[in-house]
Amino acid sequence: MKARFLTIAALLVTLQSLAQDSLMFRKISDEILLHGASYENLRVLCKNVGNRISGSAGAAKAVEWGEKAMKESGADKVWLQPANVPYWYRGKESLMLKIANGQYKKVTALSLGNSEGTNGKPLEAEIVMVHNFDELNALPAGAVKGKIVYFNYRFRQDFVFTFNGYGDAVKYRFASPSIAASKGAVGVIIRSMSTGADDFPHTGGMHYNDSFAKIPEMALGNYTADSLEKYCARGKVMAKMQSECHMNTDLRPSYNVIGEIRGSKYPDSIITVGGHLDSWDVGEGANDDGAGCVQSIEVLRAFKALGIRPKYTVRAVLFMNEENGTKGGEAYADSALSKKEHHILAIETDAGGFSPRGIGMEMADGLKERIRANKALFLPYGVYDFSMEEGGSDISPIHKKLNVPVAGLIPDSQRYFDIHHTNNDVFENVNHRELELGSVILAQLIYLVSEHELL
Amino acid sequence: MKARFLTIAALLVTLQSLAQDSLMFRKISDEILLHGASYENLRVLCKNVGNRISGSAGAAKAVEWGEKAMKESGADKVWLQPANVPYWYRGKESLMLKIANGQYKKVTALSLGNSEGTNGKPLEAEIVMVHNFDELNALPAGAVKGKIVYFNYRFRQDFVFTFNGYGDAVKYRFASPSIAASKGAVGVIIRSMSTGADDFPHTGGMHYNDSFAKIPEMALGNYTADSLEKYCARGKVMAKMQSECHMNTDLRPSYNVIGEIRGSKYPDSIITVGGHLDSWDVGEGANDDGAGCVQSIEVLRAFKALGIRPKYTVRAVLFMNEENGTKGGEAYADSALSKKEHHILAIETDAGGFSPRGIGMEMADGLKERIRANKALFLPYGVYDFSMEEGGSDISPIHKKLNVPVAGLIPDSQRYFDIHHTNNDVFENVNHRELELGSVILAQLIYLVSEHELL
Repeated sequence: MKARFLTIAALLVTLQSLAQDSLMFRKISDEILLHGASYENLRVLCKNVGNRISGSAGAAKAVEWGEKAMKESGADKVWLQPANVPYWYRGKESLMLKIANGQYKKVTALSLGNSEGTNGKPLEAEIVMVHNFDELNALPAGAVKGKIVYFNYRFRQDFVFTFNGYGDAVKYRFASPSIAASKGAVGVIIRSMSTGADDFPHTGGMHYNDSFAKIPEMALGNYTADSLEKYCARGKVMAKMQSECHMNTDLRPSYNVIGEIRGSKYPDSIITVGGHLDSWDVGEGANDDGAGCVQSIEVLRAFKALGIRPKYTVRAVLFMNEENGTKGGEAYADSALSKKEHHILAIETDAGGFSPRGIGMEMADGLKERIRANKALFLPYGVYDFSMEEGGSDISPIHKKLNVPVAGLIPDSQRYFDIHHTNNDVFENVNHRELELGSVILAQLIYLVSEHELL
Repeated sequence: MKARFLTIAALLVTLQSLAQDSLMFRKISDEILLHGASYENLRVLCKNVGNRISGSAGAAKAVEWGEKAMKESGADKVWLQPANVPYWYRGKESLMLKIANGQYKKVTALSLGNSEGTNGKPLEAEIVMVHNFDELNALPAGAVKGKIVYFNYRFRQDFVFTFNGYGDAVKYRFASPSIAASKGAVGVIIRSMSTGADDFPHTGGMHYNDSFAKIPEMALGNYTADSLEKYCARGKVMAKMQSECHMNTDLRPSYNVIGEIRGSKYPDSIITVGGHLDSWDVGEGANDDGAGCVQSIEVLRAFKALGIRPKYTVRAVLFMNEENGTKGGEAYADSALSKKEHHILAIETDAGGFSPRGIGMEMADGLKERIRANKALFLPYGVYDFSMEEGGSDISPIHKKLNVPVAGLIPDSQRYFDIHHTNNDVFENVNHRELELGSVILAQLIYLVSEHELL
């Protein structure tokens, strides 16, 4: 009988705890949906700072913005953490195409990030179209030498979760110049990593293998890529590439922006939540990743507004240089290592300011189960998927170097690769409620882990 | 032992069936995501037809468009079903506000649908602001008589599922003129039923109680509503309303557009999937409910393209007059009654072309369970919520009159009430993949019910 009483007592405690968590989840949601500052913060970042590639004047301005916004959130302490970053310069660029004996016509294109250009001089060559690396490899060297290779690989729209399509296609952005150069190509044009039913070209990181010539790489939006596909199928197409792109080898000083609320019980144990402050040099970096920055700051603001004093220290981090170097993420991990910091959990939000659907986790199975045991609490907020192995680029170093459990916010993925790394990634393409709901989930997750010392 | 063998055999059959369903779900998804016609169909409807209030030239053009699109889907049979509809006319309208002894300034406003106007003449009166019906009722009659009542009721942003906020607020659009007129008011201004962080006013249906004067009603977008709130708090505000709005009492001939694929096994048993073809007379009726129309047509196209011959007859129906009369829905139910048709299930898609999250059901619990038993099949497509009691306006008559089980597609609700019934409900605010995923879920659900004779 005693055992049964204990079981009932334990059950009552569990139910009471569940009811309290449920109530606090609602308070967090109400606070953020009714009084959230994230949308206005994002407007200021997008419209007053704009895009902000690492090492640029925009990035420096973004650091100032972040420090101010972090202080306004009510953080107990705000500081800048040094991180030296590369600087990639786009300059002027153009791409012109000529079909058969016609005239050259300019098309919309973007050089890929980190790509070298043509020293601003015209690079004219015939285009050879391939659909994938196998097709390129099957060509005799003579068919590629001195040509510009057009990698016409389509983003697979049949993947429901669009990040799977991105994972499938991104090698054609990242690696194709060196692979083409190994067969003597002088330039590369790619179909963008894009789900868009539009013509926005997408920039994004690429990488050279030092064994081969550093040839320029440019991306086309889907409509122009479709046209070029038709032209190439019909006959000879010439291209004239011109660009001033250049990667500075010297690093420039920059910073992560950090704000924290000190833990009430374990001030030396840290939960991190962050996004990245840098963006590519196009659009406004609204979804990638202004959204993640303002959502992270909002967690601190909501905790302060609600008088939540977390047991662990909660840090919001705006990481610098996610897009082309992850120097901010490395600096954060290195600092934690050298200071022997104790990190409980690091969460990243860098998949767009869309309606949240899940929480990805990279941690021991037993820890995942402790979070999954609370799934039902998140369901009223539209979060049901706890199945993905997912953290984030900026928290990958702390995961790898300090073995810190990491998690990632998983928003709806349908629109992300329409606008990712384009001139269309602007404030107007972020919805206020979707953005705020992302903050709600982050704040709820941190509250849960901290309140119950779950990890 | 025999019993155990039978159990294992039954389990194997179940597993095999699950694997087959899963495969067919994937085929449906691939077909629609890779070759779908819904997005292009929606573009034509929005850009070549535009908005299409019942009884208008736009609605007549939309019927022609629907018939053509339905035929192009490959439907076995396409026809028009007569439904006589009311015609509400907006004409010219304006709202001007004057603060204290200042000048009148025009503000952006929209008359509510079905509202009578001012016969085109200026109606000038002082504004009295209330936040809800209780505040109005507490006012002495003298404080309201001859005045224009401003119902400044805020859409509750704290509801995560925005349709709950709409359900909470919509009475201030629907019923406030007669309630205000009962106390002698001469006009009504409302804060729109809007989640928008913007100034778009939202139109939408209202209704007069014949016992009271039919006074005009106009809606403000949130920014103007905020301004008017401040003005009223400070002192006297005058308004000048002017509008030609008028409801025609004579009905006009119109049509539902219907296409069907005949069932292979039970051609006389019908599954209906539909949206509504009419819209309000603003914007392009893209999410409300062009999306539902093209999604329904897409179900037929996908079935034909995949060679799926459903056991039951599958009908796509573009209902006329959902917005202000439901005459199309009534005509569909009355026709089914008079022809003694056997309807298995009717599904509506009228909640915007956003990422699907759930399937609502209004049917006997036992039937709901048969669908819920297959939940896991829908999860890879982002659909997890089978909890809501939900059908749709157009299928409500067939549910009520013939007791047909009904279901409704539940998309993500965050953006719907930003753009619902506004000039901002345009094609550009529908995402191609989100739209297509809605069709995927509808086609999968119909396949499942038909293939397994589930209902």
